[in-house]
Amino acid sequence: MAGYNVAPLENLVEQFEKMPGIGYKTAQRLAYYVLNLSKTEAKAFSEAITDAHEKIKYCSVCCNLTDKELCPVCASEKRDKSVICVVETPRDAMAMEATNEYRGTYHVLHGAISPLNDIGPDDLKIKELLARLDSSVTEVIMATNPTVEGDATALYISRLLKPLGIKVTRLAYGIPVGSDLEYADQVTLARALEGRNEL
Amino acid sequence: MAGYNVAPLENLVEQFEKMPGIGYKTAQRLAYYVLNLSKTEAKAFSEAITDAHEKIKYCSVCCNLTDKELCPVCASEKRDKSVICVVETPRDAMAMEATNEYRGTYHVLHGAISPLNDIGPDDLKIKELLARLDSSVTEVIMATNPTVEGDATALYISRLLKPLGIKVTRLAYGIPVGSDLEYADQVTLARALEGRNEL
Repeated sequence: MAGYNVAPLENLVEQFEKMPGIGYKTAQRLAYYVLNLSKTEAKAFSEAITDAHEKIKYCSVCCNLTDKELCPVCASEKRDKSVICVVETPRDAMAMEATNEYRGTYHVLHGAISPLNDIGPDDLKIKELLARLDSSVTEVIMATNPTVEGDATALYISRLLKPLGIKVTRLAYGIPVGSDLEYADQVTLARALEGRNEL
Repeated sequence: MAGYNVAPLENLVEQFEKMPGIGYKTAQRLAYYVLNLSKTEAKAFSEAITDAHEKIKYCSVCCNLTDKELCPVCASEKRDKSVICVVETPRDAMAMEATNEYRGTYHVLHGAISPLNDIGPDDLKIKELLARLDSSVTEVIMATNPTVEGDATALYISRLLKPLGIKVTRLAYGIPVGSDLEYADQVTLARALEGRNEL
């Protein structure tokens, strides 16, 4: 800014501006928020960043995020180890957990096949998925996103697993609960019609 | 979240969630952004927070933010020291600077009088403003926000300064440039009419 530039502040604004969905004005607001924190609070915030970065790693089984060797789901004896739900990101696994309906385990791919972005099967945790498939696994649920990339990834993995004799399923497509038919897009509506169930 | 909780990650999400305008979902997205940073980047981010917090203080003259004794505006010899523009926050001063039209100095109050929020004149940098008024100051421009609090603050300060024989002015109210009359609120339109100028 012309004639006015406080280096540490500008640096902080820039750091915030790099984050997804944060523009310059919001970055400024966040930087001023940090300045108004107490010294202890600012230290806690700063440490939370380095801490999370240093302590969090991938679960050695499902590649989800954890600060231990195994993630809480893989470590739990209450979870059904014979079912694996394959998701793209840790956040997708969290969304599944939030349903409180799923009692199996997860496998986090950390992305989806996307030739446009130069992401191939080898860039995903597919090898790790194949490595954990033994005779105890009866079903793999493909819960990748309902996008072109997610669908391609689901198809690719299902072709790898079918010869092994493992049941591969895909989340149902359809109209979201609580929405309005009027606003549903054509493709979703067509899929909902196709997948209709008897009442 | 039921059955799934990685402490360092949750801690980071909570830190982001405290920030203004950031909800749980956005906080999550930001936390995952931090996890995907390289080690150097995460360290730089963390240090930017402590750095800004430790190094930035108030300018000894105008109470704006600076990492030196004087802010760049007060330290500059090119600025007209006889005019002081009184603003509520450092961001307001930045907005004024961005116009590239103002060549005087600033005074940052760090708030506005607001009895509802228990903020009185003593909580603002009004004493510091009075202390810097000497015979060289010819005009004080009240550029507090066009809100009830900003107006009250402007009125309060103008009553303090009038007996000292200093000219006190207020930013003009009116319709914003590039907007549509249709969407202007009644009060703004009435003020714009009241303050009309001859062409």
